Amino acid sequence: MIHESVIFGKNVTFGENIIIEDNVIIGDNVTIGNNVTIKANTKIGNGVQINDLTILGKGTSTNKKMARKPSNSADPLVVEDGVIIGCNCVIYRTVLLEKGVFVGDLSSIRENVTVGMDSIIGRNVMVENKTNIGKRVTIQTGCYITADMIIEDEVFFGPCCSTSNDKYMGMGNFEHQGPIVKKGAKIGNNATLLPAIVIGENSIVGAGTVVTKDVPSNKTVVGNPGRVIK
Amino acid sequence: MIHESVIFGKNVTFGENIIIEDNVIIGDNVTIGNNVTIKANTKIGNGVQINDLTILGKGTSTNKKMARKPSNSADPLVVEDGVIIGCNCVIYRTVLLEKGVFVGDLSSIRENVTVGMDSIIGRNVMVENKTNIGKRVTIQTGCYITADMIIEDEVFFGPCCSTSNDKYMGMGNFEHQGPIVKKGAKIGNNATLLPAIVIGENSIVGAGTVVTKDVPSNKTVVGNPGRVIK
Amino acid sequence: MIHESVIFGKNVTFGENIIIEDNVIIGDNVTIGNNVTIKANTKIGNGVQINDLTILGKGTSTNKKMARKPSNSADPLVVEDGVIIGCNCVIYRTVLLEKGVFVGDLSSIRENVTVGMDSIIGRNVMVENKTNIGKRVTIQTGCYITADMIIEDEVFFGPCCSTSNDKYMGMGNFEHQGPIVKKGAKIGNNATLLPAIVIGENSIVGAGTVVTKDVPSNKTVVGNPGRVIK
Repeated sequence: MIHESVIFGKNVTFGENIIIEDNVIIGDNVTIGNNVTIKANTKIGNGVQINDLTILGKGTSTNKKMARKPSNSADPLVVEDGVIIGCNCVIYRTVLLEKGVFVGDLSSIRENVTVGMDSIIGRNVMVENKTNIGKRVTIQTGCYITADMIIEDEVFFGPCCSTSNDKYMGMGNFEHQGPIVKKGAKIGNNATLLPAIVIGENSIVGAGTVVTKDVPSNKTVVGNPGRVIK
Repeated sequence: MIHESVIFGKNVTFGENIIIEDNVIIGDNVTIGNNVTIKANTKIGNGVQINDLTILGKGTSTNKKMARKPSNSADPLVVEDGVIIGCNCVIYRTVLLEKGVFVGDLSSIRENVTVGMDSIIGRNVMVENKTNIGKRVTIQTGCYITADMIIEDEVFFGPCCSTSNDKYMGMGNFEHQGPIVKKGAKIGNNATLLPAIVIGENSIVGAGTVVTKDVPSNKTVVGNPGRVIK
Repeated sequence: MIHESVIFGKNVTFGENIIIEDNVIIGDNVTIGNNVTIKANTKIGNGVQINDLTILGKGTSTNKKMARKPSNSADPLVVEDGVIIGCNCVIYRTVLLEKGVFVGDLSSIRENVTVGMDSIIGRNVMVENKTNIGKRVTIQTGCYITADMIIEDEVFFGPCCSTSNDKYMGMGNFEHQGPIVKKGAKIGNNATLLPAIVIGENSIVGAGTVVTKDVPSNKTVVGNPGRVIK
């Protein structure tokens, strides 16, 4: 069912069993796969590809144990020109995907996240809320990007990296801060980044490293705990 | 298609393209998203929210290489009052989700699992069969909860934790035992727990730790292999 | 919608909201779940089970930042007799699933991959392109199998293992090589394998190990970095 208030550009291609809710705006030359749901107020630019079984513009949900309630912003999901979104993705409201972004299959991006121009969010990547991802960033398959992170331009995350933002692991309602990854840093596969650590510009974190403290710029860290090598 | 034998409470909201098989019972004030499939005999309490593209009550399947055949129990999936289930989830038969449980998007829970009251199963968490999860437990995004685990009340798993239950890694049909995590223990992100280890009450496992032996109560372990620190 | 050019065997069972594109061939005794999409030219053998919300035969997609363009082969996905595919899977074109293979829920397999007879691809496993997986291999839940890997017969991967194929982490267009895992090797859960390393026949990699160099046959490695133990 496509709501009568939906506005379409030219040359839009539709799959089957599509649901598009009210006040959605869709640009020219957009392709929408089978079984796609686009929630109310979502804005889709020109040339966007949305693959099968994907949900765009999901609202917030919580249970009573969650101490930290996400803002219930009504801001829509905005998908800029040329974005490609895979199959089986779940992208929330209050997200901005800038021009040319690629989102792989089976990924999910929560509220209040910006993904910068031409960046890659690999398959099965989970991004939490309130995180900012720069331009030309690569986040490979299976990474977990926690809430309250800052990822600057041209950062590279290898596959399966893990991040966290809560030193106290759920004990009380302390302020959370995810890692801050500076421009051009490269993080090897399955690395572990602790809350609030800073990875300096152009630094390299080896595969499997557990980063427990800040890494200066232009350094390489390896091991558990991570230590700077020459 | 909704089977004629399905019993509904009051004020149930339906998405599109829903399939509900025979003998399903659905309570009052339930919301069912688009493209949801509810398999035969599933029981859904009051106030439950089921988001788009989710499958409830899936049966068992195996191939001939799997030495260990899951029981082919016909017991249904039971979803108690106030449970919230995300998008693109796959929840099997013979599972009990107690009152107020939250299950995030892209998660899956296999047979013979109980999730206790108000617990949180994060996005993209995979839970294997025959595991018992207590009340008010938090399992954050991307964790892997193996079969034959015991997770007591108020345990906290940070994101991307990994567990295993088979010391012999597939060599023969030995008995399996997953980790046992005692009340109030906290496990940091991307930690690795080996088969059959016990994490004591209120102990803390640092992020990225590889836990190869039992951890006494009220201790902290870090490193690879994990060692107790003061 | 089922395209009129589709060829069916005997005794095929259909769910609802199924889309089957042109020139698909389907064998006898095949079961197709709800909301399944089968893309053009896919070939499905006898006795295959395809569960709900799965996509078979997806084409390639990229954005402009991806240096390395996958081949745009028009070869179809071929699913041999007796294969079982879970719910919410995304399997690409130019993949061969040999007889008796099992693919768990929420998994994805990219182009130019062969999975050998009776092998198990667990739930939420991501396989990249140009990787060859032997016969009777077990890849447990949540593993990440990078591109350009060779996995020989009877290899065992525990849950959540991570692999990589790019020493230079995205810096330029160097040749990529994934790990090579020889016959009968066993990899513990959440292990990290670096690009191009060779794991010898029947060797064992402990849980949480970071393997930074080749492992001879019949050895055991543990730690970060991985070291051979007696």
